[in-house]
Amino acid sequence: MDLISIDDLTDAQIAGILDRADRFVADNRSGRTHERLSGKIVFNIFYENSTRTLMSFSTAAHRLGASVVTLPVEHSSVKKGETLEDTARTLNAMRPDVLVIRNSENGTAERVAAIMDCPVINAGDGTNEHPTQALLDAATIRAHFAQIQGLKVAICGDIAHSRVAHSNMKLLSRLGATVRLGGPQVLVPQDALSVDEAIEGAEVVMMLRVQRERLEEDLGDAPGEYLRRYGLTADRLAKAAPNAVVMHPGPMNRGVEIESWIADDQKRSLITLQVEYGVAVRMACLDLALT
Amino acid sequence: MDLISIDDLTDAQIAGILDRADRFVADNRSGRTHERLSGKIVFNIFYENSTRTLMSFSTAAHRLGASVVTLPVEHSSVKKGETLEDTARTLNAMRPDVLVIRNSENGTAERVAAIMDCPVINAGDGTNEHPTQALLDAATIRAHFAQIQGLKVAICGDIAHSRVAHSNMKLLSRLGATVRLGGPQVLVPQDALSVDEAIEGAEVVMMLRVQRERLEEDLGDAPGEYLRRYGLTADRLAKAAPNAVVMHPGPMNRGVEIESWIADDQKRSLITLQVEYGVAVRMACLDLALT
Amino acid sequence: MDLISIDDLTDAQIAGILDRADRFVADNRSGRTHERLSGKIVFNIFYENSTRTLMSFSTAAHRLGASVVTLPVEHSSVKKGETLEDTARTLNAMRPDVLVIRNSENGTAERVAAIMDCPVINAGDGTNEHPTQALLDAATIRAHFAQIQGLKVAICGDIAHSRVAHSNMKLLSRLGATVRLGGPQVLVPQDALSVDEAIEGAEVVMMLRVQRERLEEDLGDAPGEYLRRYGLTADRLAKAAPNAVVMHPGPMNRGVEIESWIADDQKRSLITLQVEYGVAVRMACLDLALT
Repeated sequence: MDLISIDDLTDAQIAGILDRADRFVADNRSGRTHERLSGKIVFNIFYENSTRTLMSFSTAAHRLGASVVTLPVEHSSVKKGETLEDTARTLNAMRPDVLVIRNSENGTAERVAAIMDCPVINAGDGTNEHPTQALLDAATIRAHFAQIQGLKVAICGDIAHSRVAHSNMKLLSRLGATVRLGGPQVLVPQDALSVDEAIEGAEVVMMLRVQRERLEEDLGDAPGEYLRRYGLTADRLAKAAPNAVVMHPGPMNRGVEIESWIADDQKRSLITLQVEYGVAVRMACLDLALT
Repeated sequence: MDLISIDDLTDAQIAGILDRADRFVADNRSGRTHERLSGKIVFNIFYENSTRTLMSFSTAAHRLGASVVTLPVEHSSVKKGETLEDTARTLNAMRPDVLVIRNSENGTAERVAAIMDCPVINAGDGTNEHPTQALLDAATIRAHFAQIQGLKVAICGDIAHSRVAHSNMKLLSRLGATVRLGGPQVLVPQDALSVDEAIEGAEVVMMLRVQRERLEEDLGDAPGEYLRRYGLTADRLAKAAPNAVVMHPGPMNRGVEIESWIADDQKRSLITLQVEYGVAVRMACLDLALT
Repeated sequence: MDLISIDDLTDAQIAGILDRADRFVADNRSGRTHERLSGKIVFNIFYENSTRTLMSFSTAAHRLGASVVTLPVEHSSVKKGETLEDTARTLNAMRPDVLVIRNSENGTAERVAAIMDCPVINAGDGTNEHPTQALLDAATIRAHFAQIQGLKVAICGDIAHSRVAHSNMKLLSRLGATVRLGGPQVLVPQDALSVDEAIEGAEVVMMLRVQRERLEEDLGDAPGEYLRRYGLTADRLAKAAPNAVVMHPGPMNRGVEIESWIADDQKRSLITLQVEYGVAVRMACLDLALT
């Protein structure tokens, strides 16, 4: 099966991924290794730079005993004028066991999956979807609160350009959370809230990374201006639920979308737990795709 | 043994590689995995960008259970002024089990092989040779026609700069094919044919990639001009043998050296089969080199 | 345990690494493979380009059966403004079994190690330390002379900017050698010697790479000028001990810091033996860190 969009998953498959991720987190902590995917080859095709997602998928594959072949961005035939479909036909003919792809253009993973005979996992396509990020966010929230049903989740920042937000809206809503979007008017849908309104009473406050180029273009780049107007400050966090937690998909701009001390507050910040669940959720997705 | 040039191979070794490649294609399709090269380390030293050849060799190595260490192009000490021979001595002292090398300069693989104690496989040196490409082309042709003896093979395009053409001329001639070269006068040897002449009656039409810089320099870059004058069009293909097949080492410039629909014609195009045999032939070459 | 500085190692640990390295060299020569680190994941985080050190660590890890995940330099989140500490927290949450790091800034490995739960090996931090280089140099010297105690070792060249020199001064002194530093006045500590004085009577002459930018800034870049004034020439080598050997951490600038024929003199040059011990010493360090 492919994992291009959260919409590809049945409720049972979502539950299966989250349950497996919990077990894989425990295994990784205890050093238990797996050979379930021994002999399998994972292709990592990343047209966008990414430290954490590329390393997370590679680590997940190795933790299951698979081999990994990574396309170096700078080697890409796309630069030589080859079409995406021709690249996909070429990759398919090499018969990988699963292909993980990230691309800055919406719909890339779907176009590639239409050609590949093996399962395709979307590691982010433009501003469209990033399903494994949403799954790891859900797994992290569930690990902390035991359940997602009934939680109020605020997603704040550059919603319009965020595949993280798009996939999370779909997934967390399906799992019974109330998702509220907040951000600067130029970066959110018309019916979205202000950051203050979105955070009010929320149990989960998920701050998105704001691209520096947006600061320069739209939002003023005076030091502290974005933080004061739209970022997660002590004042804003105080309006969230008393037991609220803070999340961020990373990499963070400390002092821009989030005050630095909040990211480091071990009682509230789930940010490193997200990374840990990132490996575990990708193990679960690879495992589901391949077995 | 090294594989620097087609000339390095005996007839028996060529037959052995082609036979093994057939078996490996079948194994890869059925998901059968190998551990024949478990514990062996393959060094991939690619000084030129390459999606398909680098990934093909990496996949081949993993399919046989070997480990792969890839030199990132941008890390190259060559940029620091180290001589090729010093780099080779350094790599040799790390004691890889086999070294695969691609470089834009003719003779590189041979110079490196003179220093290495382990087998060296030439993955393309300048305009000189690309022996595994010729072997995969031969294996693909044989898989389709059952034998190569007696076939007429047209290789068309930028012959002068093509290591693919050079290795194929050697190999396919030895296997009993009649090889005809065709292309623009500025890009072929003096005794070569026009593209139309080369294709006439051929059972195999192999189109080469034309570099965009050559279009600009020599051949006019008006849209469709190269295709009209030198490319594979319906009219030209109609002059080939009735059962003719079409090949291309990739990446293709659709609408330049080949009309797009021809590349996609499943009855005639062997282009993706070439990629599949690429992995299998490289498995066979690694296996031959290491066992 | 971490390996950030030579100071981190007890005498017993140093002896253990050198002894293991001897055995791993023999194993690598005989093709004996290991599975001691099977299932373990090594993170290679190299912010500086490096052919030999990156490939050496990767090869060492594979020789012990470990998996390797390499951070591509160009993917680095550091470019996205993430702090080093946030990157380290992210990497830590992925739970590698060991992390190898190289960075152009002094103290990087120590800062990262303060965050990581797994062992961290410093593969070079700025002008500070490069402990595995010193260990491989010591292992190479010991392999040649049987012992290090009592030897006179000249380290010559750009001492001020050399983490190789700094780590070697610490290690070789502890092992009983007399270390003398020599070089151009602008590139050495005030109490250092001239190159001629340092080499006088030395059994080991270790030449350091001089950066081309230093030639341009400080030392004149007329052809042969650096060699004549500060490099290893026949005349200078004649003043060393009769049984003197020559070393260089690579990559060499032939004709700049060393006359070309000296590097190739098989009776005197230990330069390729250093590379071979590089893999073996890193196997020993990974083994010590992980078992």
